Amino acid sequence: MKKYLSLIFLVAFSYNAVAQMSFEEQDSLNLRKLYDMSLLNGKSYAWLDHLSNKIGGRLSGSVNAAQAVEYTKTELEKLDLDSVWLQPVMVPKWTRGAKEYAYIQSADSPTTTVNITALGGSVATPETGLRAKVIEVQGLEDLAHYGREQIEGKIIFYNRPMRADLIHTFEAYGGCVDQRYAGAQEAAKFGAAGVIVRSLSHKIDEYPHTGSMSYGDLPDEKRIPAAAISTKDAEYLSSMLRLNPDLDFYYKMSCRNYEDVESHNVIGEIKGSQFPDEIIVVGGHLDSWDIGDGAHDDGAGVVQSMEVLRLFKESGIRPKRTIRVVLFMNEENGLRGGNKYAEVAKKNRENHIFALESDAGGFTPRGFSFDASPSQFKKIQSWQSLFKPYLIHYFELGGSGADIGPLKGGNTVLAGLRPDSQRYFDYHHAATDTFDAINKRELELGAATMASLVYLVDTYGFEQVPEKEILK
Amino acid sequence: MKKYLSLIFLVAFSYNAVAQMSFEEQDSLNLRKLYDMSLLNGKSYAWLDHLSNKIGGRLSGSVNAAQAVEYTKTELEKLDLDSVWLQPVMVPKWTRGAKEYAYIQSADSPTTTVNITALGGSVATPETGLRAKVIEVQGLEDLAHYGREQIEGKIIFYNRPMRADLIHTFEAYGGCVDQRYAGAQEAAKFGAAGVIVRSLSHKIDEYPHTGSMSYGDLPDEKRIPAAAISTKDAEYLSSMLRLNPDLDFYYKMSCRNYEDVESHNVIGEIKGSQFPDEIIVVGGHLDSWDIGDGAHDDGAGVVQSMEVLRLFKESGIRPKRTIRVVLFMNEENGLRGGNKYAEVAKKNRENHIFALESDAGGFTPRGFSFDASPSQFKKIQSWQSLFKPYLIHYFELGGSGADIGPLKGGNTVLAGLRPDSQRYFDYHHAATDTFDAINKRELELGAATMASLVYLVDTYGFEQVPEKEILK
Repeated sequence: MKKYLSLIFLVAFSYNAVAQMSFEEQDSLNLRKLYDMSLLNGKSYAWLDHLSNKIGGRLSGSVNAAQAVEYTKTELEKLDLDSVWLQPVMVPKWTRGAKEYAYIQSADSPTTTVNITALGGSVATPETGLRAKVIEVQGLEDLAHYGREQIEGKIIFYNRPMRADLIHTFEAYGGCVDQRYAGAQEAAKFGAAGVIVRSLSHKIDEYPHTGSMSYGDLPDEKRIPAAAISTKDAEYLSSMLRLNPDLDFYYKMSCRNYEDVESHNVIGEIKGSQFPDEIIVVGGHLDSWDIGDGAHDDGAGVVQSMEVLRLFKESGIRPKRTIRVVLFMNEENGLRGGNKYAEVAKKNRENHIFALESDAGGFTPRGFSFDASPSQFKKIQSWQSLFKPYLIHYFELGGSGADIGPLKGGNTVLAGLRPDSQRYFDYHHAATDTFDAINKRELELGAATMASLVYLVDTYGFEQVPEKEILK
Repeated sequence: MKKYLSLIFLVAFSYNAVAQMSFEEQDSLNLRKLYDMSLLNGKSYAWLDHLSNKIGGRLSGSVNAAQAVEYTKTELEKLDLDSVWLQPVMVPKWTRGAKEYAYIQSADSPTTTVNITALGGSVATPETGLRAKVIEVQGLEDLAHYGREQIEGKIIFYNRPMRADLIHTFEAYGGCVDQRYAGAQEAAKFGAAGVIVRSLSHKIDEYPHTGSMSYGDLPDEKRIPAAAISTKDAEYLSSMLRLNPDLDFYYKMSCRNYEDVESHNVIGEIKGSQFPDEIIVVGGHLDSWDIGDGAHDDGAGVVQSMEVLRLFKESGIRPKRTIRVVLFMNEENGLRGGNKYAEVAKKNRENHIFALESDAGGFTPRGFSFDASPSQFKKIQSWQSLFKPYLIHYFELGGSGADIGPLKGGNTVLAGLRPDSQRYFDYHHAATDTFDAINKRELELGAATMASLVYLVDTYGFEQVPEKEILK
């Protein structure tokens, strides 16, 4: 009898071992398949070529943005998904107008032209331009030191550079972006005539970097024009001010704000075979700034997200849960698409178990950051070793993405792809953010890495989170 | 009494805990210092600018290579090291001559010019060029299939591409480089008139990639001209051959081999304060190919290695062991510098405990690979957590670097910096390997990562390895 028991035990044990092995093996093989397909036969690079070079910069409300909606919808329709649709959303419309022009004039010296770009949402200068003395500051907190008396009628020049010693470049960005976003509204309160902000880039070059700004609740007549100046020209202006604090800065911008217009989020999905009501979202934002072609920000995220669904279709992996790609409109200057998507999801009582965003450039992927409860994160960490062959090592809590942010709450796990970030701010919001700054392999590795995580979430799902762990 | 014993125990324990803590803390602070200094006040980028833009490509035996020796020696002398010297070494001298020229002619169609570059060491074509029919093969092993009868008088076109599905791009390179290195000598044995090799790059573009090749022991009169063709033109030639296998390929090259000439390894060192006879080497190779400016291969490794010593000096960390920078001459087409350095080290019975090479491009560092015994590697792994804040995660056994390879044996631990490799072969040995393809932060992070590992090896050293573990 003991002999038979041993045999039964052995059989049971072997069966378990094999079953155990085969889950891991199956996952490992499926990840390999997703990476192979992305690298050998991917479509992300060709899609991005079209978005960047055939369409170009896709500012919300522009003709290009409408073309991008049309193009990505058509391409998703070719993937034989279960459904593809447009979700209407009202977006701000702002136009840059004629190319900005600026110069420095110090005493009787000839003028020196410098490179500026209007911040998104800025009002124009007077038609004849704005010419004024300059006060250089290192941040919003310096304004009070000068006070209205000194600031009135002047141009405030925010020149705090991004810290080079921070390894995570997004931290360096976060430490400076208040100058761009709130610099005009704060300076206006002290009577400034305009603001010039040092471009948010580590690189010293001649390209100005635009980006969103807000006047807060300032009435129209108090709004002052705001521009970014290239890092090289910021250094130059600063050194000129040391020589002659009395120099003049002149700039001319003809940007304009319009009424909101209708645009769309582009959505496609594969219906889940077992749990169709559990929704997994993968997305990036379709809009971009206008002065580059938005290849890294966020054309890359758009085509990687589309590629995730294409990889599922081509690999023949039929998902158990519903996998939905969402190409969000208006991340850059309003987040209207992200808010609209979450609003509709809530209204329809949709159950989003997971949302993954790619909006940090098409560089070599290093991993993900997560907004998740401790038990959810523990589960995610148990998958980490499957990514080792692909040099994906970064699994950390803390932050996901702007567009999926409004989905936060309840059981929804949020994640952001984290590519290598060292070069990102060389291109971010500048004329240099173009398709030729994209490396095909890096882009494709990102898509495969996203698809792999989505595959694992789809395969294993998440348990309900205990009430006390729920993220608010 | 028991009370006192407890007190003594407590004091002893606390002392240990503090001591333990302070070692780790000290290391952590010193690493942070090295990274800060490299990122905030580094010299690597400016040095590389000079090497790349003021000197340019530094092929062994060229005037540029001699200038690079002079320049780096002078710059090392400025660092207030304990000694700086040149180590003479005889190197091969090969010149490319006039720019290569090649075209395809299919029947009566007009000719199509294609982009080629002579492989380093190749003989010239006849003065009027070489025109012949083409046989496309996928590797050396295909030659026997065609045999002498079909190959005689023809051009062999090696067209096996680098695999895109391999995550480690150096593996993909390793899987193809035999075509470039041995393609001519093998084809010559079948009577081929010349060889054309698909460039070793993942990217489909118009830039041919040169590199070393060897005729083995073929007598002079049997040597046939060998060139690399750009990947784009390789694809074109292949598609043309499918349409017309009888087309002609023409190319003209005027490259030439000379007698060996004298050149130098450039060496500088900081003498160890406690164990001056234990030597730690950090290095890269000073020579490069001639068609780019060798910024990634291996200007980056050169300036990063110099920066390691500069960081020690500037940070005031006085090393216990001797830290030596070696800028090797002639890695690309002979490895004479690496061999000479090891030969002299052996003759002088120097005790090299560690050698670290950077020769994989100036991209974001991911970690290191090591040639080490199990116990040595275990010690190295115990340091890995110190690198986590810098996103350095890759510590693996297997391979280090070509120039330090000859130091292998005995107790010497060898290591290679492992930067992100996805873009490397876009630039490697091509006209695109220029300074503008370097990102300052990525380069500086590499230098700091190297300095950090050198710091830890200097601080803790390595024990003697048991006889049975010694690497042969």
